[in-house]
This record gives sequence, structure tokens and C-alpha cells, in this order.
Amino acid sequence: MGVVSLRNFFVLSLALNVSLILKAVNQNENLHSGASIAVEKGAKVAKMTFLSLPSLSSPSAAAPETQTPLATERVINLDHGDPTMYEQYWKPMGDKTTIVIPGWQSMSYFSDVTNLCWFMEPELAKQIVRIHKVVGNAVTKGRHIVVGTGSSQLLLAALYALSPLDSSNPISVVSAAPYYSSYPLMTDCVKSGLHKWSGDAKVFDKDEPYIELVTSPNNPDGFVRHGVVNRTGGILVHDLAYYWPQYTPISTPADNDLSLFTVSKCTGHAGLRIGWALVKDVEVAKRMIKFIELNTIGVSKDSQLRAAKVLEVVSSSCEQAGGSEYAESFFLFSHTLMAERWRLLKEAVKRSGIFSLPNFSPAHCNFFDNTLGTQPAFAWLKCDRDDIDDCENFLRRHKILTRSGKHFGVGSKYVRISMLDREETYNLFIERLSQISSYSYI
Amino acid sequence: MGVVSLRNFFVLSLALNVSLILKAVNQNENLHSGASIAVEKGAKVAKMTFLSLPSLSSPSAAAPETQTPLATERVINLDHGDPTMYEQYWKPMGDKTTIVIPGWQSMSYFSDVTNLCWFMEPELAKQIVRIHKVVGNAVTKGRHIVVGTGSSQLLLAALYALSPLDSSNPISVVSAAPYYSSYPLMTDCVKSGLHKWSGDAKVFDKDEPYIELVTSPNNPDGFVRHGVVNRTGGILVHDLAYYWPQYTPISTPADNDLSLFTVSKCTGHAGLRIGWALVKDVEVAKRMIKFIELNTIGVSKDSQLRAAKVLEVVSSSCEQAGGSEYAESFFLFSHTLMAERWRLLKEAVKRSGIFSLPNFSPAHCNFFDNTLGTQPAFAWLKCDRDDIDDCENFLRRHKILTRSGKHFGVGSKYVRISMLDREETYNLFIERLSQISSYSYI
Repeated sequence: MGVVSLRNFFVLSLALNVSLILKAVNQNENLHSGASIAVEKGAKVAKMTFLSLPSLSSPSAAAPETQTPLATERVINLDHGDPTMYEQYWKPMGDKTTIVIPGWQSMSYFSDVTNLCWFMEPELAKQIVRIHKVVGNAVTKGRHIVVGTGSSQLLLAALYALSPLDSSNPISVVSAAPYYSSYPLMTDCVKSGLHKWSGDAKVFDKDEPYIELVTSPNNPDGFVRHGVVNRTGGILVHDLAYYWPQYTPISTPADNDLSLFTVSKCTGHAGLRIGWALVKDVEVAKRMIKFIELNTIGVSKDSQLRAAKVLEVVSSSCEQAGGSEYAESFFLFSHTLMAERWRLLKEAVKRSGIFSLPNFSPAHCNFFDNTLGTQPAFAWLKCDRDDIDDCENFLRRHKILTRSGKHFGVGSKYVRISMLDREETYNLFIERLSQISSYSYI
Repeated sequence: MGVVSLRNFFVLSLALNVSLILKAVNQNENLHSGASIAVEKGAKVAKMTFLSLPSLSSPSAAAPETQTPLATERVINLDHGDPTMYEQYWKPMGDKTTIVIPGWQSMSYFSDVTNLCWFMEPELAKQIVRIHKVVGNAVTKGRHIVVGTGSSQLLLAALYALSPLDSSNPISVVSAAPYYSSYPLMTDCVKSGLHKWSGDAKVFDKDEPYIELVTSPNNPDGFVRHGVVNRTGGILVHDLAYYWPQYTPISTPADNDLSLFTVSKCTGHAGLRIGWALVKDVEVAKRMIKFIELNTIGVSKDSQLRAAKVLEVVSSSCEQAGGSEYAESFFLFSHTLMAERWRLLKEAVKRSGIFSLPNFSPAHCNFFDNTLGTQPAFAWLKCDRDDIDDCENFLRRHKILTRSGKHFGVGSKYVRISMLDREETYNLFIERLSQISSYSYI
């Protein structure tokens, strides 16, 4: 999957109206046949002959894109948040996280009939409690754990569980902009009569019950967040996918009514599709479990067992860091990696002179016992050049695919850029971004 | 999970309004604490001292249930269709289906960016095509394969994909009674504005578009089915979970617009949560894929790889049956097992004199090249005794948990009984059923 083509852009644009975006990329391109192959071939050439990008003063700047040297450049797709960066940690781990499952194991629908969440593997539940204790990022005591097919399914389960059943009108679901681009699409996917997307929490002024989705640190911008509506009848769901030490200082154990986590962003194992919810109210937990029953009759046992193994190694690496088995903790490794990526990004942004990034105040991290900065999984980049209204489009012309701010409920001056791709892709992105300046063609 | 308790009945009652059923079982029982443990202890005793069931003429017949010898009997839960019977085949297979996954593998969200279904493992797609060719139960040429988290998710994806987006009213979803008990609950789970459950297809008389769910062989009764509404504007979804040689003669390769399959009922690997759809129309396939993106951002890679391995062994066992590696095909093994179970059941039913089963005509099976009977994954049992209106309740008093006909859109004279549980449980069920007669207490 090293070569990213326009065809990839098509299939990788998670949870967006892909067809509309594609029209903007190229009205005439046939994405299902030869066109993508041609681009892939071009990409292979580009690896060997990395060319300078044309500036506005270049003679070729006004020519159609296919005639510029960029036409042969590899497209860098940072639209989605695929956490392949973490392969770097797990490859040298060797057999520590290898999982062996005989053909006759885990055949039943049921994992633990003594648990309310009957489809949850006991070992996963154990490792979830352990990692929260090791990291100190969430209270698990007095919580019901509900496992899900990624935190997406758990978010839908939470909406189902928290929506009033007896109401004639769907409950409003809000989140402060910029909010995760999938929230509106997920909430309204099947035009539910239980809940409806009602936009930016900051401008929600209806005097009625509501569900507020609080993503902290926030996707896309990385800021720590709290509820903003703060009115009677409000129910909060905390999406804490990024509340891990490599991204943000761990200030306090989360102590919410309903928090969502996922291995995708914690350890980088997105392909497992494993998330979990920590739920205070037993009735809410029961309804979430019922939703998952009706939605997928439980969650893959194999991936649960694998998630348990991966979380076990992460916890052990923290507890035994500096020992014979683990030179450093998983979080120190990934924090160092993220720190370097953010250093490079900030330099490139400074060099360009036309972009800006959010400013984060340093804070004390209880896990590292140090005052540290924030280094989110996404860069929330703003294009400051007056003649550029559409930053996504501008970067796309430089063959960097990002997700426009408009999908996050704010203007198209902003884009979200994944910071978690493989090293080769990330370095190419930094190199290309560094060459964009106030003179670059639009 | 050998001991099945009332607590188990609570959590195992998939996709049913569990709390209502529980009230009927015991108004006062605390299922979250000691009560279930007491029953489990009782069950252990029951294993050693299997007692005759009291008849109506017994002095204890009129006494409360807790005072009869049955109070110490193990509860046999055949309410759900957990296919643990198949462990018997897979255990002796040893390493053939063992899967080894290193920690750094399958970390990405993406499996194959050249495929429309970007989250589908290429090896799984290959083995799906292969097994349909080997068995001859479905046309795969000209079909788009969409993988799902079990066929439940694919059914929801199909409803999403086939519902008109621009209609002000939800499309009617129907299925001929008796229909799979989860269809109504799944269709209306979040009160979708796209589709609504409209009951028995046989009495659907609205002059408007509709989606008809055709389960063939049918769950719960095992009969081969075709669409029954047959009107303009109808869209068919074929649920072919049980269209495999161990259950029913394979008469012809299914050649539908949209067919659903699952490994759960084919190989017995329910814990994997892997199903697939064969879809003729590319736009329908795209919308199904979009639904799975928004629902769970794809499907567990680990379980897909494991499903591919299991299907590979099944196909190889058919192609190489009688060779050094495979004494017999997986389907011959499981067909023989099912034939024996049905023989025992028919005997017990005959002995009781108060139950009846559906009658199936023998048909030619292309796979076995023989004329064979039907031996469904569920027994659709009718209680013929005039003084028994509620067969589920009657059997529950004999500590056999089944699913009432009322959940399948027909009367409570019927129950659905799983035929796929482990041997020990199945034999106990047959033994207990054999002892029920026209004189047994209600």
C-alpha cells in the first residue's frame, strides 16, 4: 500500500461524501480503470526523480495540472487518520504480540455469560482496566465496560442508549465546532427518529434535552475540551480516543458518565476494529449492549484477544521500562516520535510563511511526571494567504490530500492533516510542504 | 460455558426483549447475583444424578417448580443458534486452521485499496469465490463481494442501500411468517426514516415499493423459499445463511440481485462475526460499503484472515476428500452429524405423541449428487396438545429454553429449537424431550 493514488483517495476518504470530492479532483477521470494505474506508474517515477514544485513565477504555473512536473509526483494522502506510524514500534516487538488462534477456538457467539457484556472476552476487560490504571487516564472502578467494533459502533450504541424512547421528536445531538467530521453523518445515517444532528454546540440554543459529544483532545484541532452547552437535560458523551500520553499531557483520570476509547489511536491497531466504553449507569450499558446485539451480534473474538495481547504489552512496557525486556515504554517511544514530527511540521510551516497551527500551552503530564506540550494525531492547519479560500483545494494541487475544514463545521481556510502515516509518507509531506510558499501557484 | 443457567438465558436471548421473558421465568429472581450461582451448582449436581421428570400423575406435579426434582436439573438453552456443534470437526483439524498474526500486521484500516470494498482482505474474497464454486450454491461471477461484521450488519447495510433516499416515507420491509425473529427489531432499531418493518409478506397489500427479505432455507422452519409478494416496485434480499449442504439439498447456484452469507452457520465460526454479500448492482454495493464505513469503519482484519483460512480448509476438504489429508469433506461430516441429530429428534417427537415437526420432501443435491432430505439448523416444533397454548412456556417448565413462535410472527403453539449445540447438551435435550408425553404437567 506504499503507493497512494487518486483511486486510493476515492476509497480512503472515510465517512465523507466521496463522490462530491472526486468531482472536484477531476471531472473526467475514470477512477475504476486505467487512470489510477497511470498515476501509480507516475508515482514510481516520482520516487526516483523528486522534482521542485513550480512557483507562481514558473512558466508552467498557469498550465493545466497534467502538464506540470507535479503530474508525475506521488499523491500524499493524509485525509484519513490511518495510524500506520505505529508499525515502527510493533515490528521490533517480534513474537511478544504474535497471536496464535486454533481453528476450534472462539467459535461461540458468547465470550463470558457471567458478564453483562456477554460478548466481551474476559482477558480484554482485564487489560482495559490494567492500562487505564497504568496510564492514569480513566477511572474504571464502578464502570461497566462495553466492547465495540471500534469506537464508531460504540458512539452509535451510546446515541441509541441515551435517546429517550418515548419522545415523539428525536433528541438533538451537538458538538462544538470544529467537530469530528463523521459525527453528523453517523448520527443521521439512517434518518433515525431517536436522534438528529443539530450542529455546533456553541450555538445550540434550544430549550430541550440534548446529547453533547465532547472529543478531548479534540479531533481535528487537538485541544482539551469540556461540555459547552451546560444546560438542564443535557447528556454528555466523552470521546477520549486521543487521551493518551503520546498526544496530550494526562492531567487527571477521566471520570465521566460515558467515555469512549479505541485501540486504533492508542496502539495504532486500527485494523482490529476494537473500542470500549466505560459506562456509569447500568441501564445505559444494557441498552448499548442491546444495540450491538442487533447491529452485529457482538464483536470479533479474534480481534478482542489480539487487542488484549497488545494492551498487555503496552502496560508491561510501561511497568518494566528500562528492564531487559523493554528498553522504553510504548508511550515514551511514540511520544518521542510525535515530538519529532511536530518539530518538523512547525519548521515547515514557519518556512512557508503562509500557514499557521494551533498554539497549545504546556501542561503537567502525570504519566511522564513532567510539563509537556501537546502533539495531536492531526495537524489543524490554517492557510493565512488572502488569495486562498480553499486550503484543501490548494494543497490538493500540490498533491497533498487533506480534509477540508468545512466537513468539521468551520471554514475551508482550515484543513485536517493526519500525523500518523508511515515515515516515508510523512517525510515526503514535510518536504513538499516546505516548498510551498507565498509565491506558490494556487 | 458448559453449564447453562437462568443467568445465561438472560444474556443469551439474542435480539429479544429479554426483560419481558425473564419476568415470565421468575418474577423475583435476582439474576445479577446469587440466584444464577445456585442454579449452576444445581446443574453440577444434575449431571451426576439425572432424574426422571415428573408426570401429571406424579404427586409432586402440582407443587411449585422449586419443589420438584426438576429444580435441580440443568437448564438446556436452545433459544439461540450458537453453532458450537462444529467444534467437533475443528478440534481434530489441529494446526490446519490455526492462525498466527504478528503484532505489526493488519494495523491499517485498509485491506485492499484497489477493491471497491477497501476493507476486505483479498484472501477472504478469493476463498469466498472458491467455496461457492466448490459447493455450487451461488453465482459469484459479475457480483461485487461486500464483507460485513456478520450477516446482521450486511442486512442493515442492504436495507440502507436499497431504501429510496428521496422518499418522504420509509419503505416497507416484509418477510413471510414465520420470519427470523430479529428482522423486525433490526429494521426498526433506531426508528429509521428510511425503512420500517411491515410484517408478514403474505398479507402485505400496499400498492407501494417494498423490500422483501427471503430467508432460504428459512429460519425458523427450514423450508426453501422464494419471494411471495411479487409486485412492481419490490426489491428482494436473499438471506442464504443456511444454504449449505449439511442443512438442505443444493439444487441450483443462487443467482439473486443480493444474497447474504455468513461463516457462523456454514463452518460454525460465529465468534468471528464474518459475513459476506454477493451484490449485482455496483451502486448498491457502494452504498452498503458506505454504511459499513459509517457503522464500524470496516471489518476486523483478524477475523477476515481467520475466516479465509477456515473456508480454505473446507474447500480443500471437499476437493481432496478421501485423500491422505482429509478423510471426508467438511460437509459430509456435518451432514452425517445433522442426519443423526434429526433421526434422534424425530424419534423423540414420535415417542412424545404431542409434538410435530415440518415435513420436507427429498430433493436432489448437486453437491452430494444424491437425493436427500432436509435437516435444518433449527427444529420448528409444534405442540399439538389442546391444553397447551404456549409451547415455549411448557418446555421452559421442563427446563428446555426455546424461542416462541410469537417472535417469528406466528402463534405460540410453535417454538424454534437450535440443533447446533454441543453434543452433551443436544443429547440431554433429546433425553428430556423423550420423557415429555401427553401426561406431562403443563
